[in-house]
Amino acid sequence: MLTVNHRSYRRPTQPTVVVCVDGCEPDYLAQAVAAGHMPWLKKALAEGSGLVADCVVPSFTNPNNLSIVTGAPPSVHGICGNYLFDTASGTEVMMNDPKWLRAPSLLAALADAGHSVAVVTAKDKLRRLLGHGMKGICFSSEKADQCTIEENGIDGVVQLVGKPVPSVYSADLSEFVFAAGVRLMQTRRPDVMYLSTTDYVQHKHAPGTPEANAFYAMMDGYLGQLEAMGCVIALTADHGMNSKVGLDGRPQVIYLQDWFDRELGEGAARVILPITDPYVVHHGALGSFATVYLPAGTAAAPMADKLRRLPGMEVVLERGAAAERFELPPDRIGDLVCVSERFTVIGTSASRHDLSGLDAPLRSHGGISEQRVPLVVNRKLTGIDPARRWRNFDAFDLALNHVA
Amino acid sequence: MLTVNHRSYRRPTQPTVVVCVDGCEPDYLAQAVAAGHMPWLKKALAEGSGLVADCVVPSFTNPNNLSIVTGAPPSVHGICGNYLFDTASGTEVMMNDPKWLRAPSLLAALADAGHSVAVVTAKDKLRRLLGHGMKGICFSSEKADQCTIEENGIDGVVQLVGKPVPSVYSADLSEFVFAAGVRLMQTRRPDVMYLSTTDYVQHKHAPGTPEANAFYAMMDGYLGQLEAMGCVIALTADHGMNSKVGLDGRPQVIYLQDWFDRELGEGAARVILPITDPYVVHHGALGSFATVYLPAGTAAAPMADKLRRLPGMEVVLERGAAAERFELPPDRIGDLVCVSERFTVIGTSASRHDLSGLDAPLRSHGGISEQRVPLVVNRKLTGIDPARRWRNFDAFDLALNHVA
Repeated sequence: MLTVNHRSYRRPTQPTVVVCVDGCEPDYLAQAVAAGHMPWLKKALAEGSGLVADCVVPSFTNPNNLSIVTGAPPSVHGICGNYLFDTASGTEVMMNDPKWLRAPSLLAALADAGHSVAVVTAKDKLRRLLGHGMKGICFSSEKADQCTIEENGIDGVVQLVGKPVPSVYSADLSEFVFAAGVRLMQTRRPDVMYLSTTDYVQHKHAPGTPEANAFYAMMDGYLGQLEAMGCVIALTADHGMNSKVGLDGRPQVIYLQDWFDRELGEGAARVILPITDPYVVHHGALGSFATVYLPAGTAAAPMADKLRRLPGMEVVLERGAAAERFELPPDRIGDLVCVSERFTVIGTSASRHDLSGLDAPLRSHGGISEQRVPLVVNRKLTGIDPARRWRNFDAFDLALNHVA
Repeated sequence: MLTVNHRSYRRPTQPTVVVCVDGCEPDYLAQAVAAGHMPWLKKALAEGSGLVADCVVPSFTNPNNLSIVTGAPPSVHGICGNYLFDTASGTEVMMNDPKWLRAPSLLAALADAGHSVAVVTAKDKLRRLLGHGMKGICFSSEKADQCTIEENGIDGVVQLVGKPVPSVYSADLSEFVFAAGVRLMQTRRPDVMYLSTTDYVQHKHAPGTPEANAFYAMMDGYLGQLEAMGCVIALTADHGMNSKVGLDGRPQVIYLQDWFDRELGEGAARVILPITDPYVVHHGALGSFATVYLPAGTAAAPMADKLRRLPGMEVVLERGAAAERFELPPDRIGDLVCVSERFTVIGTSASRHDLSGLDAPLRSHGGISEQRVPLVVNRKLTGIDPARRWRNFDAFDLALNHVA
């Protein structure tokens, strides 16, 4: 047994693949299965196990990917967004640097214990966090042509996969992840593999649409190949995805910095959107979660009360309550945490969001309304408590400890 | 001024049309506007007023249509479902008979005050309730060929509309409502008109799909014709609509009678599904709301506690709390009210639901998750409280009292 972050895991006895499908609202799978586009998944659900789990809120990519590979919430691993306000330096920074990590990953522990481990992500921003401290293969589709043995534990990836490096804004970026996973399993048969895609398709296309179904049909084909090679496969998601528009089809936004500027004076409060990352064309940095640093001397409770009355706001919590409810590191969130409801996102100032790149009605995530995610294992499960609240970061626990 | 159910209304000074679009989750409008299928609505939202309102829970057709025409919740008008357990007779009955009505409609009051009124519904089941006590025109698409002056205040409807009587399971049934509304306005120019469609399309097709967009494009064309004739138009919905399936694409159902039969013995409790009506092919009588009559001597509170722990259950309330929260007549609901969450419906016994007619993944309604509905008026509004919680049954108030 291996113990990581106070959870124990059996060592893998068969190749074990955990797949994090970015933005995979469960209805994407349901509609694709119903329409006949996912024969592998249909069989996996019938012969294996299909659960619905809760992801971490904020329902963003980095916190959830790190939760899945550490088996723990952000209060343990420290990654509570893609972006944060670093109170030590007084600057807003990306959270891609491993220095923000507060816990080791199960992947690193497995590698240290002598198992072969491979990680493939769509975007490079996640790679360094996921691969931190891990001996093995770890690369992104985005920079597949720049892999070196030293940095990535592998080279010649483009030749191995036989596909060109895709655009960072494409469904192909995710397909490359699956194609690489299949080739790695065929050629190196790692004991454990973690595959993590990007939600380019999900930000644009609703469940059941031809484009979404095509994506899931593609995925299904690769997962079927992995199953045919004897892999245990656990499939989950970092977060769901919802339409975030008003009746006129335009983004429905609470511009929270503008609100605070009117309320407390310009720039007095600092609104942080943890969805922020360098790739914002498809969502304009608009998600359903924000955290707010108030100026010294401003009481949080009356502000929270006012914010709760804003149309489209779902939950407003002060730091302590937010850290407890969402299992977040209290020193890395602001005085207030704001979560907007299913059809509404939170922005900073209207003038700071460039929505010109949105070529489809906004779909996004970040809130409680995007917390439901699939948790599917292509095997029957044993020894599980039926009353347990499933989390996406139980994926390795199920795949290693509870497979029949 | 006219006072009906303790609300006051100005008399119409221009033709006023209230449209209840059955199952119109707001995202249907958003996606159709964004894709360019609703030029009239796009203009109405830009030059008029677009609100999102809460419908009545249970989010079913009859309670909400009656709320819209009475301006009051079911605690006032008495219609709390399509179907109920009549404790007086000990039988389960449809609630289509006007004997169940406890309040007059604004339509009847307007007619009594000398205004010309016309009502067109898709299905005939609603017609008798909506037209109760009302002098004027009142007919359904379903029985458009059987209209008589005596019963419906009009005859020759099929000739007037110039379309054949559509199938009860079709988008055409709703189109006939709009086409009839336009022809009535062209030929008789009623002071007030109420148009109410059916959710055949919405039960099958998600927002933004070609079939949904085609429906809303059709509707938009007719509403544009009404606007061109100078009508004030208020558009709302009886309820929203959500996907109600599990990961495998099959209906995700809590079979509540089966649960009670195991818990208390067969047939000891009685589960009532107020969605039940004679037209169940497209939803199999599965919705997200149920009420339960417990056997004498069974305490409700412990049952409620157990039910709250069932996966997929959102809210379980005892009679008094349910009647208060949802504004329902306490004498017409059971000891418990159960509401399932966004992706889950409630059934009675698995053996009593025929799902063979479902030719698409289940979409349905009834719960709190289907409470958001559009409330659009093609005019600017004046004198409204920005903090007001909008209800779909404010449609006549807005159209008569608050149009600029």
